[in-house]
Amino acid sequence: MSSEAQQTEEWADVTPDAARRLVTAAVEAFAERGYHATTTRDIASRAGMSPAALYIHYKTKEELLYQISGVGHRLALDMLERAADGGGSPAERLADAVRSFARWQAERHTTARVVQYELGALGEEHHAELLDVRRRTDGAVRRIIQDGVTAGDFDVPDVSGTTLAVLSLCVDVARWFKPDGRRTPEEVGELYADLVLRMVGAARPEA
Amino acid sequence: MSSEAQQTEEWADVTPDAARRLVTAAVEAFAERGYHATTTRDIASRAGMSPAALYIHYKTKEELLYQISGVGHRLALDMLERAADGGGSPAERLADAVRSFARWQAERHTTARVVQYELGALGEEHHAELLDVRRRTDGAVRRIIQDGVTAGDFDVPDVSGTTLAVLSLCVDVARWFKPDGRRTPEEVGELYADLVLRMVGAARPEA
Repeated sequence: MSSEAQQTEEWADVTPDAARRLVTAAVEAFAERGYHATTTRDIASRAGMSPAALYIHYKTKEELLYQISGVGHRLALDMLERAADGGGSPAERLADAVRSFARWQAERHTTARVVQYELGALGEEHHAELLDVRRRTDGAVRRIIQDGVTAGDFDVPDVSGTTLAVLSLCVDVARWFKPDGRRTPEEVGELYADLVLRMVGAARPEA
Repeated sequence: MSSEAQQTEEWADVTPDAARRLVTAAVEAFAERGYHATTTRDIASRAGMSPAALYIHYKTKEELLYQISGVGHRLALDMLERAADGGGSPAERLADAVRSFARWQAERHTTARVVQYELGALGEEHHAELLDVRRRTDGAVRRIIQDGVTAGDFDVPDVSGTTLAVLSLCVDVARWFKPDGRRTPEEVGELYADLVLRMVGAARPEA
């Protein structure tokens, strides 16, 4: 899939078209220069629009960041809850969760960086709302690991610390991943699923 | 140790005193607002100095970032080469490397974030120089893992991918660590040393 097609898919739920163009322009600008160094004028100009046209869709720069960060956080939550609620053994569900999440961080590394690094720039209410989404995301992974411990499939002395480390390992893919690097997003997902199963003391399930 | 004492220790090699004050002011400003949104005037003012006084020590904002990033990169390299060259089994050396590096990322999370997230803002030559330091840092961890594989102590199908994951896990501590959180830097170091020994298929060495 082309990078442009991926971007359209990533923001498919953002309508109308002009709002979607502003969101993709904002992601690029925030990733390049940081949230605080970007003006709404920069974003409008990247989207080929006037500042007044931007204002119809987003009253403030913070609203744009909230839109971007909200979509990113909810995608992660859906992905990890789907894995947690899926069929199969705890090891299969954990491998599935890590494989999809790490792969997504690689494929959407530009958006993922903005989502992670600019959390502190959100307004208080938006920040609190997304912290709650993060807690639920964390809860989905913790649930799989706890299930594995309860079933006697995993050996994990510190469930909450291991949950934190698993999520952190995946999130940091967005920092180091380069599209022209040695590994595809799929390969990163496979490698990480294997490493995480080792972290929880599980044998890798047969594919 | 107080936070102020830690900062003085962190930048002990930066002299004279005025240059050190500028460096700590720049770290704070870059961490809060990002490199591109920070002016040399902001930095001088945080350090209680005039822009002209700043200019005596650093000709550009980029020189300040290079100073900060250079110190951070060289500290990491020294720490990991010391662990790689230390005595003991590969498992002991790997645990030592991860324990110190993860702990350092927690203790110095503000500096570490600036070092990691603003790499792209460095000038071309400085960027190339620090990428070379990163390659050597990577090489130190790879060497320990390879030694463990050669000795038959580790079971690692992908040495370079596992090296990348080990470093990434430690670096991302700077993103999520909070001084008022549940774990001390020492506890993070211990947890991570254990998780990484699991990743490489080694039993934890007795302390």
